[in-house]
Amino acid sequence: MNHPIRKAKAEDMPAVLALITELAVFENEPDAVHISVETLITYGTGANPLFTCFVAEDEEEIVGMALVYYRFSTWEGKSLHLEDLIVSKKYRGKGYGKALYNQVMRYAVSQDVNRVEWVVLDWNTDAITFYENSGALFLKDWHLVQMNKERLQKYIHSIS
Amino acid sequence: MNHPIRKAKAEDMPAVLALITELAVFENEPDAVHISVETLITYGTGANPLFTCFVAEDEEEIVGMALVYYRFSTWEGKSLHLEDLIVSKKYRGKGYGKALYNQVMRYAVSQDVNRVEWVVLDWNTDAITFYENSGALFLKDWHLVQMNKERLQKYIHSIS
Repeated sequence: MNHPIRKAKAEDMPAVLALITELAVFENEPDAVHISVETLITYGTGANPLFTCFVAEDEEEIVGMALVYYRFSTWEGKSLHLEDLIVSKKYRGKGYGKALYNQVMRYAVSQDVNRVEWVVLDWNTDAITFYENSGALFLKDWHLVQMNKERLQKYIHSIS
Repeated sequence: MNHPIRKAKAEDMPAVLALITELAVFENEPDAVHISVETLITYGTGANPLFTCFVAEDEEEIVGMALVYYRFSTWEGKSLHLEDLIVSKKYRGKGYGKALYNQVMRYAVSQDVNRVEWVVLDWNTDAITFYENSGALFLKDWHLVQMNKERLQKYIHSIS
């Protein structure tokens, strides 16, 4: 199977946002996507982007994407975070996911990072099996913690 | 309590690395720190740093630090990640941790990010209580997944 993967350009971002929205629906969070095509163009293109997005195409239609950016680990130094890897439902099982995953791992090697990290929902058993088969390490003793904008404003108000 | 917090400079990085190593020991991973003072200077100072480090001082000695960097959420856009918040053991309970935490949250507001995110070990109950009291949200249905350099090389070899 030959699935060429390339970096996303500004004109690909509407298709990328459609994939992000499709994943949010799959994750039972249909209203969670608060970004726009403009947000993706602002932070994902230009001279100093905040992230790099790879896309997979099927006859010029974008059917999958993987979005990555650098992080800094105080144990390992420069690392790469895989924020999302999405293949549109009707194109699953054709190797696009693996092609995107492999591209991310090759990119990590080319950028000389010391770790690739991501998160997975504990009920997403297909993804977990895929990651396990690729040799990834699961860290089950950590919790994710977040302050969204509303919680942040409330906290800042409480300490002012 | 007045605990002035400032951004770390290159000459602070030996003290920052000492704090990172102290935390690794606390987390039962004494050999996990693979970075050097040089790594911290390379990625944490200069015109385009990968992270920002804040330090807390007690009579000119660095007794705590908080290290943050930007991430990109496909739901929320630009966000801030709190990688480490460390106060040296003999200075705990004096308000340095809270001063660093508050600085991170104020910095998040000043940078107009839409989310602050971090992780905590599930047995670190003191930290969990502190974060809960500040209004942070805990996401317990996600697993962290990692490929370190060794696993990455092995995987790349398997797909070549």
